[in-house]
Amino acid sequence: VREDDERPAAGPRTRDEYDVSRLLALSDGVFAIAMTLLVLNVPVPQLPAAATDEQVRKAFFDVLPNIAVFVLSFLLVGVYWLVHHRQFMTVRSIDQRLAWLNLIALLTVCLMPFTTSFFSRFTRSVTATEVYYGNLVVAGVAFLVLTTYGHRTGMLPLREGRQALVAARSLAPIAVFAGGMLLAPVWEEGARWAFVALFPLNLLVNRVFSTRR
Amino acid sequence: VREDDERPAAGPRTRDEYDVSRLLALSDGVFAIAMTLLVLNVPVPQLPAAATDEQVRKAFFDVLPNIAVFVLSFLLVGVYWLVHHRQFMTVRSIDQRLAWLNLIALLTVCLMPFTTSFFSRFTRSVTATEVYYGNLVVAGVAFLVLTTYGHRTGMLPLREGRQALVAARSLAPIAVFAGGMLLAPVWEEGARWAFVALFPLNLLVNRVFSTRR
Amino acid sequence: VREDDERPAAGPRTRDEYDVSRLLALSDGVFAIAMTLLVLNVPVPQLPAAATDEQVRKAFFDVLPNIAVFVLSFLLVGVYWLVHHRQFMTVRSIDQRLAWLNLIALLTVCLMPFTTSFFSRFTRSVTATEVYYGNLVVAGVAFLVLTTYGHRTGMLPLREGRQALVAARSLAPIAVFAGGMLLAPVWEEGARWAFVALFPLNLLVNRVFSTRR
Amino acid sequence: VREDDERPAAGPRTRDEYDVSRLLALSDGVFAIAMTLLVLNVPVPQLPAAATDEQVRKAFFDVLPNIAVFVLSFLLVGVYWLVHHRQFMTVRSIDQRLAWLNLIALLTVCLMPFTTSFFSRFTRSVTATEVYYGNLVVAGVAFLVLTTYGHRTGMLPLREGRQALVAARSLAPIAVFAGGMLLAPVWEEGARWAFVALFPLNLLVNRVFSTRR
Repeated sequence: VREDDERPAAGPRTRDEYDVSRLLALSDGVFAIAMTLLVLNVPVPQLPAAATDEQVRKAFFDVLPNIAVFVLSFLLVGVYWLVHHRQFMTVRSIDQRLAWLNLIALLTVCLMPFTTSFFSRFTRSVTATEVYYGNLVVAGVAFLVLTTYGHRTGMLPLREGRQALVAARSLAPIAVFAGGMLLAPVWEEGARWAFVALFPLNLLVNRVFSTRR
Repeated sequence: VREDDERPAAGPRTRDEYDVSRLLALSDGVFAIAMTLLVLNVPVPQLPAAATDEQVRKAFFDVLPNIAVFVLSFLLVGVYWLVHHRQFMTVRSIDQRLAWLNLIALLTVCLMPFTTSFFSRFTRSVTATEVYYGNLVVAGVAFLVLTTYGHRTGMLPLREGRQALVAARSLAPIAVFAGGMLLAPVWEEGARWAFVALFPLNLLVNRVFSTRR
Repeated sequence: VREDDERPAAGPRTRDEYDVSRLLALSDGVFAIAMTLLVLNVPVPQLPAAATDEQVRKAFFDVLPNIAVFVLSFLLVGVYWLVHHRQFMTVRSIDQRLAWLNLIALLTVCLMPFTTSFFSRFTRSVTATEVYYGNLVVAGVAFLVLTTYGHRTGMLPLREGRQALVAARSLAPIAVFAGGMLLAPVWEEGARWAFVALFPLNLLVNRVFSTRR
Repeated sequence: VREDDERPAAGPRTRDEYDVSRLLALSDGVFAIAMTLLVLNVPVPQLPAAATDEQVRKAFFDVLPNIAVFVLSFLLVGVYWLVHHRQFMTVRSIDQRLAWLNLIALLTVCLMPFTTSFFSRFTRSVTATEVYYGNLVVAGVAFLVLTTYGHRTGMLPLREGRQALVAARSLAPIAVFAGGMLLAPVWEEGARWAFVALFPLNLLVNRVFSTRR
């Protein structure tokens, strides 16, 4: 898509380079599908079709927590999509290792429909909370490894003066979700709401680290 | 994809800009998947494989209303895709807020397979009608906010003389579906068919507001 | 994607034009998802996990007909993708009507996972055969209308001397599947295999009408 | 996307050529969806919502083997995506036969969610192991036929001195999975782990055949 960015300025492609546009197409596809499949965790109530309107209304209120978890997971997958988006804004080239690290990061995203359903069904279980946050921590680490490898090899260069911002942005979700996991056995109710901390933390990170352009 | 449109004419990308082509790829992916998942609301009849042809024929006629709701939802999601398509025809750049507003608009689209199944199963329930139209109203508002923010910031500029047309086009579905919601407790049968008003209303809007180019 | 093809040579976009690349992205997404969802019609046998290998082997042979119908539907959706692909090879522009006709054609493709499951479950029912072929006939007509409208308006121009080939290629599946529908009540077994006629008929059409370049 | 690569340097498109970017969009879409659907093979435990945390924890450990098979299948589909990616890095043009061979290769990928679920449910069955490896063998052969046809016709040219590497890379998965199939009736436990051999074999192939550039 972006000819200038995709290829080194000169010379033919070398042995292990990959086509950036296809890697992004696969990634956007996986994100879009994972986001959309999340809705399958909201069950259609199993009432008979002849149920009264009261019953249907009650059944709808019963699935509202599932809808809330759907919205949360959608926004969190959205956060990771924005992270991926920013990582690849400056992409220069892709080698086989970066392609594999990207596949592994996508794998963690694809698990979200399962862990979302699991969390959604057993919201009050410590285990389910840990599994849900565990998936998000693993995803955070996978994206951090991807960024770090890309930065070290010069394939995903960071603009000058932005390393601290990117590092802080990558570490914020890991810290929040790992914190939620640790909190779960101690204070289950608090752990369930730990994700909320991500939003002010992100704003803080943006404010503290983006002063320099 | 469109180099000319994607980037400001001069200068490097600034801090919070995003890549238009990836945002559109994610959006088109979400629309395509949401549209296709709608068909899962049409259940395959649970007859034994040895059922007589009469039984199979009857079972097929029994799912015809589900197919009708599928067709309706598909076309309504199609309307929103056309709205999104038009919004981003003139896109100049994308900042983090626009990316988030776009994710929220996509979220409302992703809910459609659930609300479609819910409506489809309890067609004669006031609640189900309200949930279905409620989703469409929320989607309409989300797309309107997206357009408004994009227009104000100059990221999604409107061609001169087209503001009224775009506003009318965005408000039409909100009006129709909110009308359906209000009508439902009073005249359920009428509310169920309220969506039909969208099509002549759209033609009217196009006729009234598109005289000037 | 293809700058030369996407836009008229001169002048700004006019009021009702759409962006070709997004329409194709949506279309390819819908085809890809419909193709992949077809596999959901192959049920995983509901044996206990401790079943003997004989039982598992027998259960696998029991789903082979479902796999066969999956393969058939995949290839038939593939035929329609190739038709769509050829239609838009020469696309010049898109107006609102063409966008709608395209959405309607995609709608018929999205129904395939349902009609495939329906046919797959009740293979020996005349009704199921008619529903399956009926979907394919409706899809064929939708693509034919799309081609005809695109050709008449000059948006999807045909290369000189190719009108007869394109017409024959579009009519072949309609003829075969409508034939299958008509045959079903009379000779069910034959109707079930009517699709086979499509492959030699396509070769014949290519041979008869492609002599001129 | 890549104008230079997509079209022959001169002359209008000839009769049977296809648009490379759409074929790749369809392919990436199918890979992305197949990868994401794999997670549907991990069942959400059917405990009552009021289950104790011990029960939920036990239920989670019970689905860990399903998650392991998901991860395996995801990585193996990823291997085939990388193969497809490399095949089309140098694509010059596409004719109808190549488009069909590509559709058939995608078909084998689309079967993976079924065979993964089948294998996942009956891990200790010889038949399930053979069905799973059988799918991977058929996929390997389909991609090999695609490469071979593309190479012979000059549509998917290989860089000089790389034919042996590409052949070895294509044959490695076929050898490993066919070996697993043959091993299954004799040594079931060993067959289940046969896939592990793919990773060192791939490294070996890269080392032996990539010395020359």
